[in-house]
Amino acid sequence: MIVVMKNKAEEKDVKKVENRIEELGYRAHTIQGTNKTVIGIVGDLDRRELVESLGGYVEIEKMVPIQEPYKLVGRTFKDTATEIKLSDDLIIGGKKVVIMAGPCSIEGEEQIMETARAVKKAGASILRGGAFKPRTSPYSFQGLGEEGLKLLKKAADETCLKVITEVMDPRDVELVGRYTDIFQVGARNMQNFYLLKELGHAELPVMLKRGLSASYNEFLMAAEYIMSEGNYNVILCERGIRTFEDYTRNTLDLVSIPVLKNLSHLPVVIDPSHGTGDWRLVGPAAKGAVAMGADGLTIEVHPEPAKALSDGQQSLKPAKFESLLEELEGIAEVSGRDL
Amino acid sequence: MIVVMKNKAEEKDVKKVENRIEELGYRAHTIQGTNKTVIGIVGDLDRRELVESLGGYVEIEKMVPIQEPYKLVGRTFKDTATEIKLSDDLIIGGKKVVIMAGPCSIEGEEQIMETARAVKKAGASILRGGAFKPRTSPYSFQGLGEEGLKLLKKAADETCLKVITEVMDPRDVELVGRYTDIFQVGARNMQNFYLLKELGHAELPVMLKRGLSASYNEFLMAAEYIMSEGNYNVILCERGIRTFEDYTRNTLDLVSIPVLKNLSHLPVVIDPSHGTGDWRLVGPAAKGAVAMGADGLTIEVHPEPAKALSDGQQSLKPAKFESLLEELEGIAEVSGRDL
Amino acid sequence: MIVVMKNKAEEKDVKKVENRIEELGYRAHTIQGTNKTVIGIVGDLDRRELVESLGGYVEIEKMVPIQEPYKLVGRTFKDTATEIKLSDDLIIGGKKVVIMAGPCSIEGEEQIMETARAVKKAGASILRGGAFKPRTSPYSFQGLGEEGLKLLKKAADETCLKVITEVMDPRDVELVGRYTDIFQVGARNMQNFYLLKELGHAELPVMLKRGLSASYNEFLMAAEYIMSEGNYNVILCERGIRTFEDYTRNTLDLVSIPVLKNLSHLPVVIDPSHGTGDWRLVGPAAKGAVAMGADGLTIEVHPEPAKALSDGQQSLKPAKFESLLEELEGIAEVSGRDL
Amino acid sequence: MIVVMKNKAEEKDVKKVENRIEELGYRAHTIQGTNKTVIGIVGDLDRRELVESLGGYVEIEKMVPIQEPYKLVGRTFKDTATEIKLSDDLIIGGKKVVIMAGPCSIEGEEQIMETARAVKKAGASILRGGAFKPRTSPYSFQGLGEEGLKLLKKAADETCLKVITEVMDPRDVELVGRYTDIFQVGARNMQNFYLLKELGHAELPVMLKRGLSASYNEFLMAAEYIMSEGNYNVILCERGIRTFEDYTRNTLDLVSIPVLKNLSHLPVVIDPSHGTGDWRLVGPAAKGAVAMGADGLTIEVHPEPAKALSDGQQSLKPAKFESLLEELEGIAEVSGRDL
Repeated sequence: MIVVMKNKAEEKDVKKVENRIEELGYRAHTIQGTNKTVIGIVGDLDRRELVESLGGYVEIEKMVPIQEPYKLVGRTFKDTATEIKLSDDLIIGGKKVVIMAGPCSIEGEEQIMETARAVKKAGASILRGGAFKPRTSPYSFQGLGEEGLKLLKKAADETCLKVITEVMDPRDVELVGRYTDIFQVGARNMQNFYLLKELGHAELPVMLKRGLSASYNEFLMAAEYIMSEGNYNVILCERGIRTFEDYTRNTLDLVSIPVLKNLSHLPVVIDPSHGTGDWRLVGPAAKGAVAMGADGLTIEVHPEPAKALSDGQQSLKPAKFESLLEELEGIAEVSGRDL
Repeated sequence: MIVVMKNKAEEKDVKKVENRIEELGYRAHTIQGTNKTVIGIVGDLDRRELVESLGGYVEIEKMVPIQEPYKLVGRTFKDTATEIKLSDDLIIGGKKVVIMAGPCSIEGEEQIMETARAVKKAGASILRGGAFKPRTSPYSFQGLGEEGLKLLKKAADETCLKVITEVMDPRDVELVGRYTDIFQVGARNMQNFYLLKELGHAELPVMLKRGLSASYNEFLMAAEYIMSEGNYNVILCERGIRTFEDYTRNTLDLVSIPVLKNLSHLPVVIDPSHGTGDWRLVGPAAKGAVAMGADGLTIEVHPEPAKALSDGQQSLKPAKFESLLEELEGIAEVSGRDL
Repeated sequence: MIVVMKNKAEEKDVKKVENRIEELGYRAHTIQGTNKTVIGIVGDLDRRELVESLGGYVEIEKMVPIQEPYKLVGRTFKDTATEIKLSDDLIIGGKKVVIMAGPCSIEGEEQIMETARAVKKAGASILRGGAFKPRTSPYSFQGLGEEGLKLLKKAADETCLKVITEVMDPRDVELVGRYTDIFQVGARNMQNFYLLKELGHAELPVMLKRGLSASYNEFLMAAEYIMSEGNYNVILCERGIRTFEDYTRNTLDLVSIPVLKNLSHLPVVIDPSHGTGDWRLVGPAAKGAVAMGADGLTIEVHPEPAKALSDGQQSLKPAKFESLLEELEGIAEVSGRDL
Repeated sequence: MIVVMKNKAEEKDVKKVENRIEELGYRAHTIQGTNKTVIGIVGDLDRRELVESLGGYVEIEKMVPIQEPYKLVGRTFKDTATEIKLSDDLIIGGKKVVIMAGPCSIEGEEQIMETARAVKKAGASILRGGAFKPRTSPYSFQGLGEEGLKLLKKAADETCLKVITEVMDPRDVELVGRYTDIFQVGARNMQNFYLLKELGHAELPVMLKRGLSASYNEFLMAAEYIMSEGNYNVILCERGIRTFEDYTRNTLDLVSIPVLKNLSHLPVVIDPSHGTGDWRLVGPAAKGAVAMGADGLTIEVHPEPAKALSDGQQSLKPAKFESLLEELEGIAEVSGRDL
């Protein structure tokens, strides 16, 4: 942490801040510049937020953090890529680019069975589908709840797929955990800290989606919440951020792939469906993601998008999905990956 | 809802969409333009999201919602301003601009008692303070929990102030409700739908803070979640949005005051402390808010900001707070309000 | 400037950077932290950008600027508020809140004469109106050009108002200067550096509008371009920034008033018309601006908004404008200002 | 254009607007919904902005544009991809992904010659380099001007490369045109309409960079300015937009590639150097761009980034650039393109 003093800070002001820093158990290292005085704080800055309270000093202009705020998610803590093993031949974060696919919402047995068979045939490994749906409107379809989870699990079992599904309420972690292989935390819940802590005690991996306006730091700190409670199997998922551009549903930040992989050892999955909100853009976005090193993709597939209860406009039909996976194979191969 | 067909849509494509609309129970009203065909959907669009599933049709270019998505929060439902009565002489949404003040976090008995006395003396009506703190880092001070709630309640009782405090977990609604007069929902939880639903069944008013990147529509829809469960006493609180400008902690959207009051009958409170993140800017922001018609302000006050465990840089000292309230009185008066 | 070395930087890497810094004529002051090494660069950092080229070193993680990049616009250079005198009793940046008003575009003699008389009567001091219009579409009305300037000047002369109008092309500075009292630089041209330089040689004051996504620093640096060429009479104008919220045309950043006044000595004017894009919001925004310390307002007024060739939806009718100014007077007075 | 009337609009209000629409030469087609009345405007909406002036009617809630505002740049005008031929075997917009490379600024003969040779050897077709530099600070290196253009041209000629360089001032179009093969318009000048018009009369192709906060529509309208003056050889260049995320210099919007290609027939080039601002991210971003269908890349290469006068941190060394092009070849091939 670097403390920048105000332009007109006098020696006694600097002294006061230095004393406070040392009172807090750190060493203060002052540089007297031509116009500005800065104070470097040296020590093991575990009590970062405490130090931030220095902000109350009127003589201080600003404080500049130097060290990344996270520990467990960072490359300093662990420099090899984390591999999350779901079965002997299904590892997220390994050589294979893992494909998760399925409908936005589970709507009924026929729909989920048909989709499961289609995505399995095309080459997906994991079946996705929502039983608890975060909806902007209280009047929208909220999902089938446990009934949906049962259908999802059944469809996955019959097709030998693994399951990923969203959990929204800390009280539902145990329930959802009975039916899923991976917990999904949605973008709106990225900083639902009680949910994150609850998942930190769970046995299953967690795929954490980046919040609509979450910085990389905040995203990684949310993963840190889960890891700090003991669950180290966290997957980061970029699904588009909110910007001024509203032609697409979100702005998919594909450069987050190399950024997050530079900063963290956790696997990175891309969601081109929510990231673009438009089935015509899902294919190009998926190709970019694989070329840029994504460890997986989560793609919405619906047997009849025009009749979907949610997200029809961003869902692929099975045939289109199948031909996309074929195209992705070529890109994966030249990128040193498998699909 | 207006459906815009693609440029080259043929008559049979238009027919197909018209049929689907009527299948869904609405009337389709088609306008054939020079280059574009648009279809107006007429009827009581309760099943808005269902209609959105039309998005799966490849012949459709886009759909444009015409009607506001909310009902209970809107001016169409209720055109007179909602007044929330906390006591005989304390109404939020009435003539008086209500002042909520106190520390970011409750840190101990002495701190909260001292602050309570100071803000009461200056003219505040409601004591604020966090016992459960949403913190970006799991290693930051997370609040004193129930112990904090007890201290807050005690300080408020001794100074005849009402209490507002944050609830983050749906499992804590009952607990927090024992100590507070108003529930606060933080910006990060604005779309924590399970929490909102739980609060929809509570007896006490709820102050809902706007999410960091929530549009007005999303903000109002979150309030709709609470109201749709039966709790009509909702207060909207603007506390700054996230933009490209990072000199201030957030960009305080003061124009939201007239916008929200045009769209909704609910009271609007401004948080200049989080909205700016800088105690030097709190005063000007508070003045603007009162001049623009805010129904209340929530301001962080700390007896010794330099030693605060959180948010020291945006907290006012009691003396500064007191002189601010004096200045606000003049603005309230020329604006036809009391303070 | 603080250079932050990568986590694994070795002593020789640090040495290399230190040497380069000293080669460039500065002193390097290194702090060895627990995990990070940072190097403070001390000296008169005129060659800021040169120093930035250090970024090419792979051993460096990032560089953190400490000093503000501007000189002439800053409080360090001049700590008293700049007053720009247009006539004996018309000063921008003084006690009086200066009102600029008029139509978006000059459309004809009758329109501009009628508007001039109306805004004069209501209490405005300066007549605004565009003769050269920056339009998103090449097919939109582009303004009347010199003919418009003549009408504007004539209307202002007959009503004893001063004139402000936009200049878009460096080749038009001389032409526009013949008719105006203040040059206006539009948001889209805030970083049209050749235009800024040309205006730096002009005799007349310049009102510089903040770019749609310009940070405070970039805004002030654009003013610095003008001042660095010798023209010290620069007025800063906030007119709304671009954010994710598109209900309003822009997000009016009213907190920029105290921020810019803390950082700079230049006067600050607010444009509530472009800032909100909606005539119903202009009044509240103007009130907030005066309460927060704005030195002036620029407001669009049109005798018949429904027939305006541009910006009809954000223009006030003369009667509404007049009653707004009356309301503003009260706020100005309690804020220690005149209107 | 769809006009949405306010909730309480009466028949006479609707009539008034209908009359005005027909006065303007269009047909009004009214749909009476359950709560809302909307009016579709039918006709050849050339006078779009005129119609917008309807916004002045207080009975209107909003107007929703249905038709895209551009003509010449759109797929409706021309449905085949535009190919811009620079020489017999160099076409932008054809099968080959065209590589433009070179330093940010031309700094001297040795630097530009060395870079030209290196990028030619690696496989680039076009040499880039700035002689007129748009710099945030007036005190930063502003480029070598005509001297730089001469060096650039000389280096390109000796290595059989084509030239692209930026023009910032409408007065310099003729001068720059003597040395370059393609004009570049920088992001800050995307809406410098006088410059765009001037380039609309030029003989050479123009590469237009997207503004920092320009929507797709605004970007395409800026291209329309050039085309509407007669120059049809326009190349669109995405170079990153401004968002809340400041870890990277900009947020590179790679999804713009399929979006712009759906909306327009013009070629799309990606700038991964400015788009990320970090040489470590240039490679992954370039790979994504090729996989997603970009027609070209513009990449900053500097023989000694650590000593560059600008943008050192985002420049590749020649060796790194060469190996990147090799990797891109594989991706281009599986995507049905050449490099």
